[in-house]
Amino acid sequence: MRHARFIHQGRIREGIFEGDVLLDEQGSVVPIDGVTWLPPLVPRTVYGLALNYADHAVELNLEKPKEPVLFIKPNSSLIGHLSPIVYPAGVSYMHYEAELAVIIGRAGRRIRPDRAMDHVLGYTIANDVTVRDFVGNLYRPPIRAKGFDTFGPIGPWWVDAADVADPHRLAIRTYVNGAVRQQGNTKDLIFRMDDIISFISSFATLYPGDVILTGTPAGISPVTPGDVIEIEIEGIGRLKNPVVAEGASS
Amino acid sequence: MRHARFIHQGRIREGIFEGDVLLDEQGSVVPIDGVTWLPPLVPRTVYGLALNYADHAVELNLEKPKEPVLFIKPNSSLIGHLSPIVYPAGVSYMHYEAELAVIIGRAGRRIRPDRAMDHVLGYTIANDVTVRDFVGNLYRPPIRAKGFDTFGPIGPWWVDAADVADPHRLAIRTYVNGAVRQQGNTKDLIFRMDDIISFISSFATLYPGDVILTGTPAGISPVTPGDVIEIEIEGIGRLKNPVVAEGASS
Repeated sequence: MRHARFIHQGRIREGIFEGDVLLDEQGSVVPIDGVTWLPPLVPRTVYGLALNYADHAVELNLEKPKEPVLFIKPNSSLIGHLSPIVYPAGVSYMHYEAELAVIIGRAGRRIRPDRAMDHVLGYTIANDVTVRDFVGNLYRPPIRAKGFDTFGPIGPWWVDAADVADPHRLAIRTYVNGAVRQQGNTKDLIFRMDDIISFISSFATLYPGDVILTGTPAGISPVTPGDVIEIEIEGIGRLKNPVVAEGASS
Repeated sequence: MRHARFIHQGRIREGIFEGDVLLDEQGSVVPIDGVTWLPPLVPRTVYGLALNYADHAVELNLEKPKEPVLFIKPNSSLIGHLSPIVYPAGVSYMHYEAELAVIIGRAGRRIRPDRAMDHVLGYTIANDVTVRDFVGNLYRPPIRAKGFDTFGPIGPWWVDAADVADPHRLAIRTYVNGAVRQQGNTKDLIFRMDDIISFISSFATLYPGDVILTGTPAGISPVTPGDVIEIEIEGIGRLKNPVVAEGASS
């Protein structure tokens, strides 16, 4: 089942899909064209993984990490499907990062890898938008590089774990203005989701609503205002966001 | 005024102090010895500053940063006054970091330094507990170093901004087992609170409930199970937490 969160007639609503029909909490049909999409859940902590596809590490000239490389994305950066990504003034290289996002549904600490997937509620799509200008300083974790308002498109909905036969075999594709720019498959994750969940929970309790962005495959490239980014993940959906210049009226 | 959050008779309560008397929401006196202290607010995003006192940068053999060095501390790490800090098994060097914590009370983006302090609701004390073993890798922001469950003691209460005459002139002291180990003063912050607030809000909206840990002065040293850490900040209070071994019954 697909679960969405959206604004309709001035109220924040949560709904589900029956086929392609969006239903609100009481089962009434909601016209999709009339909604503003929100992140499909209110996340607790959003963990991100850097360098989690070998081909992406190669593209950045970096060694494969020996353990998961984590960061936290501030919740203030999150936006829904179709909302604009704001290109900060003065920046020279902003890029998309297509990522499968894992949603935790059951709390756990010191979760064994072979039990980790039992803690997964479902999956969604994330665009871990990044300004390369601000990456790469030893003493500066990339909070600013990945933490701008609007740098966390997520959605359009989340899909129950039970509806995803094999989360480690999902094609990922990014389109910019309709042309494919990035292609990958979750089978090429360096650290699989069970290992990531086990690793994080080795030091921090994972709670329902925590989200893990599992990393991006090779194929990053610059985007600029006017571009439209679409990320498609097999069996999940397609997340679309335009890029607008800072200060542009939208 | 001092504001506290605590468990009393099985319920989460919020209260204030009149002098040294703790009152619950309806003004009834609560016996302090009978409460379990919680973090004094439910924080949204907890931003931390690394290397924000020159003497601490010197102690680590690091250059003074040219702009604020940020990280995010996961909310799962937070604990209240008197709760135990769990020393992870197998770790060689865990230390305290005494820090003034700033609580945001009014949302803002692109806040000018000269308006920044208007966005501050109040102040509290934080212990940014860190495992040095896990710090120092270029591609590994210190999520694990500072993100263990219990690595974020905060409290015991927060104090209204109006009650702190000059937040940039507060003595900070850490005691381990009663002996002074760390001394500093917020007058020695490299980036002052107005600059930090302005910097963060240059890319991310700050919201009510966001917390900023402003960094620690020189004087870090190892602690081990059995130690008791007390952090005192002038005009705020004293935050005390024992260190216990992982797996020890408490």
